[in-house]
Amino acid sequence: VSIPDLQRSLREFAADRDWEQFHVPKNLVMALMVEAAELTEIFQWLTPEQSSAVMSDPARGEHVREEIADVLGYLLRLADVLGVDLESSLAEKITKNAVKYPVERSRGSAAKYTEL
Amino acid sequence: VSIPDLQRSLREFAADRDWEQFHVPKNLVMALMVEAAELTEIFQWLTPEQSSAVMSDPARGEHVREEIADVLGYLLRLADVLGVDLESSLAEKITKNAVKYPVERSRGSAAKYTEL
Amino acid sequence: VSIPDLQRSLREFAADRDWEQFHVPKNLVMALMVEAAELTEIFQWLTPEQSSAVMSDPARGEHVREEIADVLGYLLRLADVLGVDLESSLAEKITKNAVKYPVERSRGSAAKYTEL
Amino acid sequence: VSIPDLQRSLREFAADRDWEQFHVPKNLVMALMVEAAELTEIFQWLTPEQSSAVMSDPARGEHVREEIADVLGYLLRLADVLGVDLESSLAEKITKNAVKYPVERSRGSAAKYTEL
Repeated sequence: VSIPDLQRSLREFAADRDWEQFHVPKNLVMALMVEAAELTEIFQWLTPEQSSAVMSDPARGEHVREEIADVLGYLLRLADVLGVDLESSLAEKITKNAVKYPVERSRGSAAKYTEL
Repeated sequence: VSIPDLQRSLREFAADRDWEQFHVPKNLVMALMVEAAELTEIFQWLTPEQSSAVMSDPARGEHVREEIADVLGYLLRLADVLGVDLESSLAEKITKNAVKYPVERSRGSAAKYTEL
Repeated sequence: VSIPDLQRSLREFAADRDWEQFHVPKNLVMALMVEAAELTEIFQWLTPEQSSAVMSDPARGEHVREEIADVLGYLLRLADVLGVDLESSLAEKITKNAVKYPVERSRGSAAKYTEL
Repeated sequence: VSIPDLQRSLREFAADRDWEQFHVPKNLVMALMVEAAELTEIFQWLTPEQSSAVMSDPARGEHVREEIADVLGYLLRLADVLGVDLESSLAEKITKNAVKYPVERSRGSAAKYTEL
């Protein structure tokens, strides 16, 4: 399945339930935050090392997968409602960041490091 | 470009800069929240109606596109580090939600409506 | 009860349970985000008008009170662990914002309006 | 200064600038999330140990103080607009949590530990 396919499924899902009325950008961005926070909750008391091993527990791993799917779902829905092309937007951002963070000056530095 | 292609670009971007050390799930989920909040900031004082028209202003529209790209970037990076397949996770979640929110009982209801 | 009294209660609560090991700033700020998102969830599908009337429903009002208390709790705990004086920090910020947002130039404007 | 004093200052600050129109709960909770995320950003790439030492750098410490003040400001404003008494809400929540997390069963356990 591709991103546009998933967006079509989500669009039909909302239309079938007459939920488009709730899916204005202001509401969808709040829902995105809420889902991102539900994902965050899984990691909040873990050490960084524990966070790297989170998928080794099957129940917790399934929980992570579901919350990641929820974040992706609202992000796709928001982009769809706004008419934003996700793949090209990210591809452009990566190109831009390659200029902003030159390899030599950025190596191993968290100080400079504020973005992807 | 596909999701796996974008993930490969982001993975190489991080590797080239020796940033894998920072990209543990606990940190990436924080970065995801921060980017989602930067997107939220654009909408916080807008009415729902204004939020629906946000792309009609070119400068603001470009800002929205960039912040959406940042959210997607960290979501792809997080999923990559965790080994989560994004497309199949979301496809499964949509199937699950179709059972959880039957069309007839869910129509037009925000009361029941707590998820996608 | 004053802010320092509440902070003392929370400090003892954590100490009694040997939870100080979890209460490092990085974790507490994540917990703060998570609680703020649980509060956000109550408002995400409401219109602005409905959001203003949220306390008129007793059950929902109680839910709002509890989530607000959770946000405050983690904010007090975080400030306590970091040694930040909350009242003086906010008083200084208000003074600063009075300069940043002069009454005449800021009146009724959401365009300029990005902070308190 | 007490919490009610600070709320009075914030209320007058908003009234003087005719900003009450923007200060509906739905908008204020978004602003709260955004400020909490700006605080989070300071900690996202730090190790837990580095996060505990964050105030030892004066510039960064001042940044932390300002972001904490912003979070508190919007929380006070939101509570004021909703008519929620912050101190009593938190005092009640602490009492409730003392029952939910008995000292003996909760000691040193992050597994059980999902709330304050």
